[in-house]
Amino acid sequence: MSSSWGQCVKMSIFGGSHTKAIGVNLDGLPAGEAIDFEEILLQMARRAPGQDKTATTRKEPDAPQVLCGLLEGVTTGAPLCAIIENTSQRSGDYENLRVLPRPGHADYTAWVKYGGHNDIRGGGHFSGRLTAPLVFAGAIARQMLRRRGIAVGAHVAAIAGVPDTPFDPVDPGRELLERLSREYFPVIDPAAKERMYEKVEAARLEADSVGGMVECAVTGLPVGAGNPMFDGAENLIASLVFGIPAVKGLEFGAGFGVSALRGSQNNDPMYRDENGHVKTRTNNAGGILGGITNGMPLVFRAAFKPTSSIGKEQDTVDLRTGGEGKLVVKGRHDPCIVPRAVPVVEAAACIAVLELLAQSGLL
Amino acid sequence: MSSSWGQCVKMSIFGGSHTKAIGVNLDGLPAGEAIDFEEILLQMARRAPGQDKTATTRKEPDAPQVLCGLLEGVTTGAPLCAIIENTSQRSGDYENLRVLPRPGHADYTAWVKYGGHNDIRGGGHFSGRLTAPLVFAGAIARQMLRRRGIAVGAHVAAIAGVPDTPFDPVDPGRELLERLSREYFPVIDPAAKERMYEKVEAARLEADSVGGMVECAVTGLPVGAGNPMFDGAENLIASLVFGIPAVKGLEFGAGFGVSALRGSQNNDPMYRDENGHVKTRTNNAGGILGGITNGMPLVFRAAFKPTSSIGKEQDTVDLRTGGEGKLVVKGRHDPCIVPRAVPVVEAAACIAVLELLAQSGLL
Amino acid sequence: MSSSWGQCVKMSIFGGSHTKAIGVNLDGLPAGEAIDFEEILLQMARRAPGQDKTATTRKEPDAPQVLCGLLEGVTTGAPLCAIIENTSQRSGDYENLRVLPRPGHADYTAWVKYGGHNDIRGGGHFSGRLTAPLVFAGAIARQMLRRRGIAVGAHVAAIAGVPDTPFDPVDPGRELLERLSREYFPVIDPAAKERMYEKVEAARLEADSVGGMVECAVTGLPVGAGNPMFDGAENLIASLVFGIPAVKGLEFGAGFGVSALRGSQNNDPMYRDENGHVKTRTNNAGGILGGITNGMPLVFRAAFKPTSSIGKEQDTVDLRTGGEGKLVVKGRHDPCIVPRAVPVVEAAACIAVLELLAQSGLL
Amino acid sequence: MSSSWGQCVKMSIFGGSHTKAIGVNLDGLPAGEAIDFEEILLQMARRAPGQDKTATTRKEPDAPQVLCGLLEGVTTGAPLCAIIENTSQRSGDYENLRVLPRPGHADYTAWVKYGGHNDIRGGGHFSGRLTAPLVFAGAIARQMLRRRGIAVGAHVAAIAGVPDTPFDPVDPGRELLERLSREYFPVIDPAAKERMYEKVEAARLEADSVGGMVECAVTGLPVGAGNPMFDGAENLIASLVFGIPAVKGLEFGAGFGVSALRGSQNNDPMYRDENGHVKTRTNNAGGILGGITNGMPLVFRAAFKPTSSIGKEQDTVDLRTGGEGKLVVKGRHDPCIVPRAVPVVEAAACIAVLELLAQSGLL
Repeated sequence: MSSSWGQCVKMSIFGGSHTKAIGVNLDGLPAGEAIDFEEILLQMARRAPGQDKTATTRKEPDAPQVLCGLLEGVTTGAPLCAIIENTSQRSGDYENLRVLPRPGHADYTAWVKYGGHNDIRGGGHFSGRLTAPLVFAGAIARQMLRRRGIAVGAHVAAIAGVPDTPFDPVDPGRELLERLSREYFPVIDPAAKERMYEKVEAARLEADSVGGMVECAVTGLPVGAGNPMFDGAENLIASLVFGIPAVKGLEFGAGFGVSALRGSQNNDPMYRDENGHVKTRTNNAGGILGGITNGMPLVFRAAFKPTSSIGKEQDTVDLRTGGEGKLVVKGRHDPCIVPRAVPVVEAAACIAVLELLAQSGLL
Repeated sequence: MSSSWGQCVKMSIFGGSHTKAIGVNLDGLPAGEAIDFEEILLQMARRAPGQDKTATTRKEPDAPQVLCGLLEGVTTGAPLCAIIENTSQRSGDYENLRVLPRPGHADYTAWVKYGGHNDIRGGGHFSGRLTAPLVFAGAIARQMLRRRGIAVGAHVAAIAGVPDTPFDPVDPGRELLERLSREYFPVIDPAAKERMYEKVEAARLEADSVGGMVECAVTGLPVGAGNPMFDGAENLIASLVFGIPAVKGLEFGAGFGVSALRGSQNNDPMYRDENGHVKTRTNNAGGILGGITNGMPLVFRAAFKPTSSIGKEQDTVDLRTGGEGKLVVKGRHDPCIVPRAVPVVEAAACIAVLELLAQSGLL
Repeated sequence: MSSSWGQCVKMSIFGGSHTKAIGVNLDGLPAGEAIDFEEILLQMARRAPGQDKTATTRKEPDAPQVLCGLLEGVTTGAPLCAIIENTSQRSGDYENLRVLPRPGHADYTAWVKYGGHNDIRGGGHFSGRLTAPLVFAGAIARQMLRRRGIAVGAHVAAIAGVPDTPFDPVDPGRELLERLSREYFPVIDPAAKERMYEKVEAARLEADSVGGMVECAVTGLPVGAGNPMFDGAENLIASLVFGIPAVKGLEFGAGFGVSALRGSQNNDPMYRDENGHVKTRTNNAGGILGGITNGMPLVFRAAFKPTSSIGKEQDTVDLRTGGEGKLVVKGRHDPCIVPRAVPVVEAAACIAVLELLAQSGLL
Repeated sequence: MSSSWGQCVKMSIFGGSHTKAIGVNLDGLPAGEAIDFEEILLQMARRAPGQDKTATTRKEPDAPQVLCGLLEGVTTGAPLCAIIENTSQRSGDYENLRVLPRPGHADYTAWVKYGGHNDIRGGGHFSGRLTAPLVFAGAIARQMLRRRGIAVGAHVAAIAGVPDTPFDPVDPGRELLERLSREYFPVIDPAAKERMYEKVEAARLEADSVGGMVECAVTGLPVGAGNPMFDGAENLIASLVFGIPAVKGLEFGAGFGVSALRGSQNNDPMYRDENGHVKTRTNNAGGILGGITNGMPLVFRAAFKPTSSIGKEQDTVDLRTGGEGKLVVKGRHDPCIVPRAVPVVEAAACIAVLELLAQSGLL
């Protein structure tokens, strides 16, 4: 129980920061879907570290190798497994973490759960590196969705309190989604990005880090995908998004804002467009009613905590002596993980939507 | 796929607002656990409507009948199924909803998904009434948790923008949790409650409704319960909480607030208490690191949208004519669902934690 | 973990021999399916005891009450739950079984697993009575299958070594299946039935019991339903059929007979019928190749052990004293369960096939 | 849905006969378990082809590479993934199978299910080669079981109608199980093996194949592992064993033999051994009552059909022309798969028992 997900499209993610390889197995993909490998690489490049000063300077080629499931670039219907070899590893950086767990990290909880047998190097299976196979899987799912008229895009909605312009929830715009979904550090308002950079750089210079928020939109969804109660669209997306390291909050549509609204404000008035299709004037529901898509854009936001690994000295405990200790985390870390988290959130959305459609017989 | 949940403790919820009965089946409960039926009734009474002006005046006795799984009040280890007969039904109130779907409700999405065969009366399986069996299940789980030293309590954190005093995340206080978990409309600050009442009453008089927020805390958890990635504590709680009708947002610990913090602020400094136990000075993590409990209180908040069924006239579509229409929802509805949602959120927390412990071999 | 089953069509069975009620919840049924309640009652009557001397004289009305999931006799797409109240209970008969477990029964294993908290009355959750909700569920599934051209029927293939004529595996005959699937104690050769009766009566007079075998066929299946490896048609059927009490063996097509065959005998030669459809001359595969249906009749056989509860004195252990003991099982038991098991096996086949089609997008 | 299995210990198998690699991911293994890699290789060698004339002359090194999940030879608790690169591939041998499906094979059913997109080379994902990762997984599980006093062994119970001496079901003998579980083509009676060889050789010379049966025993199991109904020990084992290509039948304990027995013969008399432990004089139950282990040896038999790929000319259909055709399968195939199937059956038993213990909190 941990890193396996899904009922129709089953995804298993494996590996750790410093294991021989990491990877993902996708079982239950539809057969006959042509996969553009270049696009997979583009998505993985968006997540790769070392692109600017918000991220670690560590270089990871992140070259996925497909072991099976594709024949001449087309899905066979059999499990599709891909691995990414780990190459850039400085194992020595992490030795002291076995004794002095990092505050804000899973070092201590994993140590208890696994009786000290977990792989501490680079965070092991808890490493953000495990989002690379998730992005791989999402890039597969995205191509299947696009073929069905569905677009998925996200942007950095905020860093360190600096907000980007939010999506127009009623119509995020397909072109905008397409543009964002191909960029590193995508924002809607370029000026916001500059102010975000300043915040990140200020934190970096102080050996600190900053958090942020990612907003994601999905357009082109059919009406009727999803389920009531525990297999609803929100539940399904949440089950993946809370699997992304550092996510501490998730909201759909008007989200936490609904708590201050009246029903007459929050209910989205319904109408028919020129083609007779049912639409809503506003989209506080974020495209989901009763766990089921209503055909409006699906919009959600995820909050990311600041990178836990910081260079400042921190109070921790000593697992060897049973006492306390001071920790200064060494190694290369991202002062802000949020720009690299954007393609990860998109990937989670792509996989969740693919599963949602499969569960609803709409694939 | 919809109303079944869990891997170790499997829960299936069934029924609709106007079906003969609603109920829940719990498969995989530990054997030999004495169940206090009075406490179950107390929890169900907290959720029952008609207790004050925030809620519908509809009266539902909500008397659960245990069909199996208990022998002389003790769990046998076999599935425990309980049903609640529906008695107070005014089916006539809902006839027009089959034609004019309510904005903000699942009427339209269910109509598409089920090809018009869904039970529209009272919202059918999408009714908030389905939270009654959830509260029943939670009351069972809560007793098993208490026996293991775990307390669960929640309060109305906000209504219509009026906040209650939040929990002290480092120590919510067992007595406070016990008190809250036995009250209807529980708050920490009584003065806040008065101001909330005013907001609800104002909305009610305008045939409108208001939303709010529930904050929940769990104390006494062991360290090491949970899993990385997709079966983490957050994912598990989210998979239940987003199954509660009207929830549009969920956050853990400092939640969305983390997006504006620095790592040095957000990381919870670790220390040892007088007994040598590992603790943290702050609790921005909400008791969860890497999907695994760290022994600190688990704290989360859920945002509830305002009740969708309001007496004000709303724009909708006409499913019969293919055109548009105007809707005035009749019947008895809650101007604010949040007070009644508190025991539901607690129930979800109890069940999620029971499953979490079972999955981790800690039950 | 125990009495919940299925990924697309989820079935939860609950109750015990002497609980207030037993029942079943079906989650994930297609919406809009008209259900003939008379046919459900007919199937349940086939399983009911007291019909002849092969069975216990206990009378159980077995009147299922649908709590939800049907609206005017049509599935709504929401969970369909039905319960059967237990009325004919002689609890006193079972008191000594808590101390002296019955050989061949789950009394001892359940006592260990549940720490003595299990409901021993009538076998509790291990009772053959739990097959009543299974038959109910099967009768629902059967009607959905019939609408799609699929017929399911079974017969008593053997009792106490006396064989019935087997199905023609290439063409069991739709009329024969329809006939068998409406009868109590269905056989193909009436003369075999007489000889079976003699064997059962001889055992009954000696306070003993006899075992037997049920053969089941499914015709009208589409090609391509099923999956490789662990979700194959055989696996799925096995996961249900081994859930029927007393089943100790299961074989498909030529079954154990394949172990003595050559490939040239066992491989079913392929040809095209007058309509160009792919068929096989023989059907040693039992309609399944690589876990996937090939369009030929699906044929399987299940072996049932003789009823464990017999009136003869047996050696057992004393769980109270830690010593040994002698047991004479009292109460009313079936000298042969096999005739009543036929509709249960058919029900398992119906549910398994419904799930198989749902998983394969063929429903 | 297909090649993923398990609730506590989740196994995903991937790859095809001619893909770059095949492999298995195990999620949910206990942490801190030392793994002897030599023993894994020994088990894989038992399954490898080319060892004698019963098997294909194809050589496959079957060298597994562990990608993650082990740290210095000890399980970390994170997913353990291993791959085996495919090296000996003669893809040209299979070209005509895309047009002329092999009788007795999944060629036709997969062609329909996957719309012709499946990988036909070497049977693709339906290849017996996929049992290599299963054996790898079983070798991991076996070491965990051995540490808990559990032994698993199997033998060729029959080939082409020639039987081996069966296990003593009451006491198969730990030494015998240990011996069998290290051998290629293990039998209890060496003379039987000679007669089996003759049958296989006779078939081979006629370009034909023969079937057989494998009997497996598990000793040292605790009492109380398993569940009633659908997650019983039989169901769990069946869900894996029917995933082994060519298995068409499965029976536990006295198996199909029970159908001719009386209850007084079949019920296993209970007694206490010198240590006061509950035992049975016979073991017709095969160690399982009500789906739960009773502490006696778990014994089951699986029937294997003769290898479908034979050199004799066979009738088939032409998928290109819509007509019929004749097929002579070329390539290197096993005249009898049964000797190589023994370690596969043991592996399935090891994994099923590990899951059974995990589900029952007995790991």
